[in-house]
Amino acid sequence: MPIFDIESVRRDFPLIVNETLEGRVYLDNAATSQKPKCVLDTINHYYAQQNANVHRASHHLSTQATLAYEEARETVRHFLNARSREEIVWTSGATAAINLVANSYGRRFLQPGDEILLSECEHHSNIVPWQLLAEERGLTLRYIPVLPTGELDLSELPTLLNERTKLVALAHVSNSLGMPMPVERVIAAAKRYRARVLIDGSQAVAHDNVDVQALDCDFYVFSGHKVFGPSGIGVLYGKYELLEIMPPWQGGGEMIEQVSKRGATFTLPPLRFEAGTPHIAGAIGLASALRYLSTLDRQAAAEYERYLLNGMERLCADIPGFQLVGGQGRTSIMSFLVKGMHPQDIGTLMDMQGIAVRVGHHCAMPMMEALGLSGTIRASLAFYNNLDDVERFVDALRKAVTEF
Amino acid sequence: MPIFDIESVRRDFPLIVNETLEGRVYLDNAATSQKPKCVLDTINHYYAQQNANVHRASHHLSTQATLAYEEARETVRHFLNARSREEIVWTSGATAAINLVANSYGRRFLQPGDEILLSECEHHSNIVPWQLLAEERGLTLRYIPVLPTGELDLSELPTLLNERTKLVALAHVSNSLGMPMPVERVIAAAKRYRARVLIDGSQAVAHDNVDVQALDCDFYVFSGHKVFGPSGIGVLYGKYELLEIMPPWQGGGEMIEQVSKRGATFTLPPLRFEAGTPHIAGAIGLASALRYLSTLDRQAAAEYERYLLNGMERLCADIPGFQLVGGQGRTSIMSFLVKGMHPQDIGTLMDMQGIAVRVGHHCAMPMMEALGLSGTIRASLAFYNNLDDVERFVDALRKAVTEF
Repeated sequence: MPIFDIESVRRDFPLIVNETLEGRVYLDNAATSQKPKCVLDTINHYYAQQNANVHRASHHLSTQATLAYEEARETVRHFLNARSREEIVWTSGATAAINLVANSYGRRFLQPGDEILLSECEHHSNIVPWQLLAEERGLTLRYIPVLPTGELDLSELPTLLNERTKLVALAHVSNSLGMPMPVERVIAAAKRYRARVLIDGSQAVAHDNVDVQALDCDFYVFSGHKVFGPSGIGVLYGKYELLEIMPPWQGGGEMIEQVSKRGATFTLPPLRFEAGTPHIAGAIGLASALRYLSTLDRQAAAEYERYLLNGMERLCADIPGFQLVGGQGRTSIMSFLVKGMHPQDIGTLMDMQGIAVRVGHHCAMPMMEALGLSGTIRASLAFYNNLDDVERFVDALRKAVTEF
Repeated sequence: MPIFDIESVRRDFPLIVNETLEGRVYLDNAATSQKPKCVLDTINHYYAQQNANVHRASHHLSTQATLAYEEARETVRHFLNARSREEIVWTSGATAAINLVANSYGRRFLQPGDEILLSECEHHSNIVPWQLLAEERGLTLRYIPVLPTGELDLSELPTLLNERTKLVALAHVSNSLGMPMPVERVIAAAKRYRARVLIDGSQAVAHDNVDVQALDCDFYVFSGHKVFGPSGIGVLYGKYELLEIMPPWQGGGEMIEQVSKRGATFTLPPLRFEAGTPHIAGAIGLASALRYLSTLDRQAAAEYERYLLNGMERLCADIPGFQLVGGQGRTSIMSFLVKGMHPQDIGTLMDMQGIAVRVGHHCAMPMMEALGLSGTIRASLAFYNNLDDVERFVDALRKAVTEF
């Protein structure tokens, strides 16, 4: 077992402590993650002692709130290793961040006949915004096919990627199977055609460090609630030279320079893309979560998660009818089927035994269609899970399969 | 003094207690409001005991979270007296709600040459989205002019409103002066031309009950953080027969029925407009704030706020150079100037004495231009302010004007 002080970490998460007391196990971390107490304390402290609107006043509270809010942006910059704080745009989540790029960059710079390349493994949030854009602008969407292992079939990349490809949007890690996507190779290939690349990091950031400069992607998005932060907050990273030429998406306060009855001029990024009073408590709560992560040995945490995942798979191997979906190298997700049983029934039987897993298409219908599946059962881990969680899961699954 | 248990109410707001201990006075409530402890407790309880993603799973936590989230929608329905829960769409704030209507209803149903009628008193959030839409769709924006009293000049309404007018967007209460807008008269006039009406309730909901059925507006929007709720959450009310024919705005999870590589079909309102994991904690936190309001005698609270506002005005009347901006019937806002002094200097001198007010254009540049002002100083009240706050404000203002 890797060196990782799991019992101490576990005590940092009030919901995990509570669920353990109630005899339940939370293995739905790919849907949303739990929050360390410091995040709750930060939100509470903000509302009880600092709450004010930002960027608009010179009074004491507003100055404090603005400082905390912009420090939070710096924390995210550091977390992603972005070049500057101005490359970090707050959004309400990864979905809003992708919609922002589609509506601002996409509607301004993509022309009829241009192509967008996705993969068959994407979450709906990285498909539907591009479909809406494609329909409006007369674009063509192409998809990198998925293999039965859940890996992408890059053999077709040379034809899928061509001089008409203007944008590539790809998950960093697939949300339904946990398969790491070949982002480095796709980014390198896209660059040869000067196509822009957006990476959806929603399933990656909770499990590993991300370096957007090393990746050299043009956009990177993630949701706060999936990386131990609050709900309603997310991040769009964009290279500044792109953000700078992108028109605003939403109109409102904060994002303007001047407004007259005849029209408006807009401020520089990132505020240009942050119309309205932002989710201040969300931003500083997310920063608190990221600071918490920085106190952990993230490599040890990742190794520990792999250890749990491997253990889970090994223990499931002899359950009658158990079928793993997906190949090697998965990130903290075990998607599976049980021969002869409907995933929904498994989910219900697991819930009856206090085990929270997710069943269904995991917002990835095109991938399910490509793999000929209607859905899977998905158990997803975080570093606060422990061996006991894994064993209870496996026992419950065995019981569900053999006794019901 | 009206009967309203101010000291008991005041103790419900941790930040107000804290600021009082620190010797400071918060009079920037029109920018954002403070939160009763029950809202903080609700958020904390949610994250510590209920946190899960909604609408997607059958496990215990997710079921609980979904119930709490949909109960919050019902609380908002009741608060606005909407006909059904399906008319309540969660957004990230009033700004996002207005952008949603502009991008969904506006882009689908407004044609080149159509007109949108606004007023000169609008917040930028109720101007810029329509300017962006007008530029894209070839629409004409018209503005109901403001009189020096801050009232709207309705004498021009018969020409401003005509058969080309397809949409009217109007504040319920002006955010810069606190003037109530003649929403009933404008709605009645708009109906004669079958123009849709959106009311921006951001400055109204904290001070009075709202009944969207009695108003008979088509859309009503507000931000949670201005009505004692959390940041990052807001509401779009829309008549169901309109929501039903509106296309989605953002694409993602939650809002689809089916997704294939070729395209997607979308679910019914309100979820059609709620792409991505919503701000669950924000929604239930806002519901907690609205439930708190329902425990108060809101009429008494409104009378009490008027009593404070009247006292504030009376006490300021003999301060040398004091000039009130705006006419009668204002809602808890006193916008003013001091002859010979720059608003920014007043703001700084007030802050030095621990009084939080706001100075500037209050995101209402077109109104400032119409009134020939560059900005005002704005003191804005909530029902948790007390006479001591008012007196400290007036003393500080007198000192700022006479001693500095």
